[in-house]
Amino acid sequence: MTPTETLFAKWADISAVGSAAAVLSWDQETKMPRNGHASRGQALSVLAGIHHDKLTDPALAEAIESAAEAVGDDPVLAAQIREARRTVRRATAIPGDIARRIAETQSRALAIWQQARADADFNAFEPVLGEVLELTKQEAAALVDAGVANHPYDALLDAYEPGATEAELAPLFADLRDELSPLIKQVADSGVVVDESPAKGDFPEALQEEFGTMVATALGYDFDSGRLDVSTHPFTTGFGPGDVRITWRSEPDDFRSGLFGIMHEAGHAMYEQGLPAEHANTPIGQATSLGIHESQSRLWENQVGRSKEFWTWALPKFVERFPAASGVTVDAMYKAMHTVTPSFIRVEADEATYNLHIVARFDIERQITSGDVAVRDLPELWASTYQDLLGIRPESVADGVLQDIHWAMGSIGYFPTYTLGNLIAAQLFDAAGDAIDDLPGKISSGDFAPLLGWLRDNVHRHGRSLSADQIVQQATGRPLSSEPFLHHLEATTAEVYGI
Amino acid sequence: MTPTETLFAKWADISAVGSAAAVLSWDQETKMPRNGHASRGQALSVLAGIHHDKLTDPALAEAIESAAEAVGDDPVLAAQIREARRTVRRATAIPGDIARRIAETQSRALAIWQQARADADFNAFEPVLGEVLELTKQEAAALVDAGVANHPYDALLDAYEPGATEAELAPLFADLRDELSPLIKQVADSGVVVDESPAKGDFPEALQEEFGTMVATALGYDFDSGRLDVSTHPFTTGFGPGDVRITWRSEPDDFRSGLFGIMHEAGHAMYEQGLPAEHANTPIGQATSLGIHESQSRLWENQVGRSKEFWTWALPKFVERFPAASGVTVDAMYKAMHTVTPSFIRVEADEATYNLHIVARFDIERQITSGDVAVRDLPELWASTYQDLLGIRPESVADGVLQDIHWAMGSIGYFPTYTLGNLIAAQLFDAAGDAIDDLPGKISSGDFAPLLGWLRDNVHRHGRSLSADQIVQQATGRPLSSEPFLHHLEATTAEVYGI
Repeated sequence: MTPTETLFAKWADISAVGSAAAVLSWDQETKMPRNGHASRGQALSVLAGIHHDKLTDPALAEAIESAAEAVGDDPVLAAQIREARRTVRRATAIPGDIARRIAETQSRALAIWQQARADADFNAFEPVLGEVLELTKQEAAALVDAGVANHPYDALLDAYEPGATEAELAPLFADLRDELSPLIKQVADSGVVVDESPAKGDFPEALQEEFGTMVATALGYDFDSGRLDVSTHPFTTGFGPGDVRITWRSEPDDFRSGLFGIMHEAGHAMYEQGLPAEHANTPIGQATSLGIHESQSRLWENQVGRSKEFWTWALPKFVERFPAASGVTVDAMYKAMHTVTPSFIRVEADEATYNLHIVARFDIERQITSGDVAVRDLPELWASTYQDLLGIRPESVADGVLQDIHWAMGSIGYFPTYTLGNLIAAQLFDAAGDAIDDLPGKISSGDFAPLLGWLRDNVHRHGRSLSADQIVQQATGRPLSSEPFLHHLEATTAEVYGI
Repeated sequence: MTPTETLFAKWADISAVGSAAAVLSWDQETKMPRNGHASRGQALSVLAGIHHDKLTDPALAEAIESAAEAVGDDPVLAAQIREARRTVRRATAIPGDIARRIAETQSRALAIWQQARADADFNAFEPVLGEVLELTKQEAAALVDAGVANHPYDALLDAYEPGATEAELAPLFADLRDELSPLIKQVADSGVVVDESPAKGDFPEALQEEFGTMVATALGYDFDSGRLDVSTHPFTTGFGPGDVRITWRSEPDDFRSGLFGIMHEAGHAMYEQGLPAEHANTPIGQATSLGIHESQSRLWENQVGRSKEFWTWALPKFVERFPAASGVTVDAMYKAMHTVTPSFIRVEADEATYNLHIVARFDIERQITSGDVAVRDLPELWASTYQDLLGIRPESVADGVLQDIHWAMGSIGYFPTYTLGNLIAAQLFDAAGDAIDDLPGKISSGDFAPLLGWLRDNVHRHGRSLSADQIVQQATGRPLSSEPFLHHLEATTAEVYGI
């Protein structure tokens, strides 16, 4: 074998172990019987160890460096080497004993967090959260030492959004803070109360699933390369381009959660289904960042799924399944999907307030990483940040600092990718609208193929050969900006709230 | 860590990799979308390689021998060492290049076999079957060289039925040949035609599933540690004692296939659920042999499921779901479950003729292993053996030598375990009847716990600490014999056919 073949053979093995672990995790969330947890935990832990051992095997690093000598002027191979090096560097940067302590502590923290949230008891969570955050700081320091990034927070961000930096995100997030807080106040002051009754009613799960499946198929999600199952928290997982699965959950009396959940996950899944098959199981054969990933889910959920054009097509099909909606107009449906209400829980937040939840976490995470806040002061910092940004103050830590799983898992730097996704989605959708002849008309007639095709060409097919920044620049002709998103939001709130 | 702890830690890792592979296989047969095959095949192949590498790692062999020094008079640890050595010896006996050629050839043979069976074209299958059988002979020779067994066929048998030998099986199989062929002829000569209409009708799949689930739960299959799904071929798979899953398939117009399939797989699964939890993921924490495994499935399917006592309990519940059966008596149901008809296809054979299908394969396999038959002569040998044993001669190779998957997979020596299971089931059931006060009465009232408890105590809890022979001897007070099975069969045919 040539050095390049050796590299790809080793990478394919690593990818296969990751794929196996993903199957086990999917099964755990969707099919596993109650008593399966013990053996599943052990199997996942062993696979994680094997995955890590293979990634940090010196023979892999050697294969990468040998293959690097053959790059010449082959840009694809150069990207493969760059991404292989990046992944291996992150994996090898963390000393084995810290990696094991992180895994053990996170696992313990997760169980304690679940109970503490149920009990709304921050004191119970505080000690182990302190341990997790201390280890996360050690991890960040090790990553900085290894040259992954120049600053600790950037080193953590880089795990989810390769190459992103606090310095780059801060102005985008400042825009959002400056624009969204006043917007939300304006909405409140408008006195308008949106009629949400078009979204309410009696929606049997089987009918919701049938409708959601029809919609996902129409968008372009390929059920021959995927499937839809029920889980507590909706997610997408891919085991290769031919097997990308989505999950959902439904509410019996409000169809929005189920339908937009399916459209969101289908967006994620179409990205994975559209990754370059010829590079499957290679370093560049994967999503380039979580921000780009989230842009795909948000675009289909928000830019498409909440649009008048979409409902022009979808409403008659909706009424076929749910005849009680026969008197609802597209305008009424549109309004019911664009309410703006400050709330405590991020995952239930509307399109306008959502990013302020992220701005809050971004602020707090930077203070955590820099050591400017003590763990015991986090509940108060959380509450005052919400008061400041959203004008509401959680009474209970269950509605505040304990609501998210991320910090218990040591995932500092993950939250910003949600907002990046929202911003990128709006900017990509604008560019697609410029590139596609009469995109609104096409969506109104249920012809989603041109939009998916544009995303395939401009985003999906690049895999990780381009960075998130490069994809945004190439696809939209300019760097990422908050302007398209804010413009989208101003247009909807103007129409819905008359402001 | 002590040497013993090291051994168990290594074994737990190996077991976890095997468990992960089993989850992937289950998913492949029950949930995987059509286009998932490529990445799944790769993931399974990588896991198989890791499993093999870990089993043949010299450090494991060293850990076993170090732990062996600590055995003293601890019989459990002695059994652990014995079974660890046995497993490692088999894995290391096959040279790596032969193991890889076997895997590659079997994978190719499987695809060719599927097409050849569909086309009823033995010529298409003959070359690759020749390769598989040649490699299997090389494997057997390597196993004999490694001291696994004294004779090639025994070395192959040992993979499925540890310690079993051709010399031990031959007289049991001769009994069956001598008794069953005349019995079947007597049935044919009796001129009696059994009324199978009680088993026929209109049985919607959902109702069959609900009834089968109720029955499996009543028998003692724990759905908190398992689940039931649909697959093309029913099977049981365990990922640990807390997660043992079964599958089934149904026929819309004959409930027997679905119900007895579920009872059969539930029998397998209750064995796995009853394995000693304290020895999970250790060498003795698994089923001791496929013969014992099959005895558990057959006992619940045939000794229980086809009995008048079972139907005394089950028939009213059956009629609740399927009111068209309201006029059917227990006797009529019993007769419909004990028809005897020579047929070509093993998996569709009745209780009486089934073992002759196995006797035929046992005869042919021994001739294959000894080199007494050429691959091209197998179709004719098959046909003449069926003529001899069952009095029927397949016209098509699809109904003959091409019907089973086993030889394409190099699984020579697997078939005898089916018959061993039938014989052991009958002998265990007799012993359980002696040990349990009024077992027929208990079954008639749906109280299956005493029987399951007896099997837990006498079979399941031993895991692999006892061999199949030891389990039979201890549980029944005598070595395995064909007599209980033949007695059971004579009793049913006497009642159904008046002979």
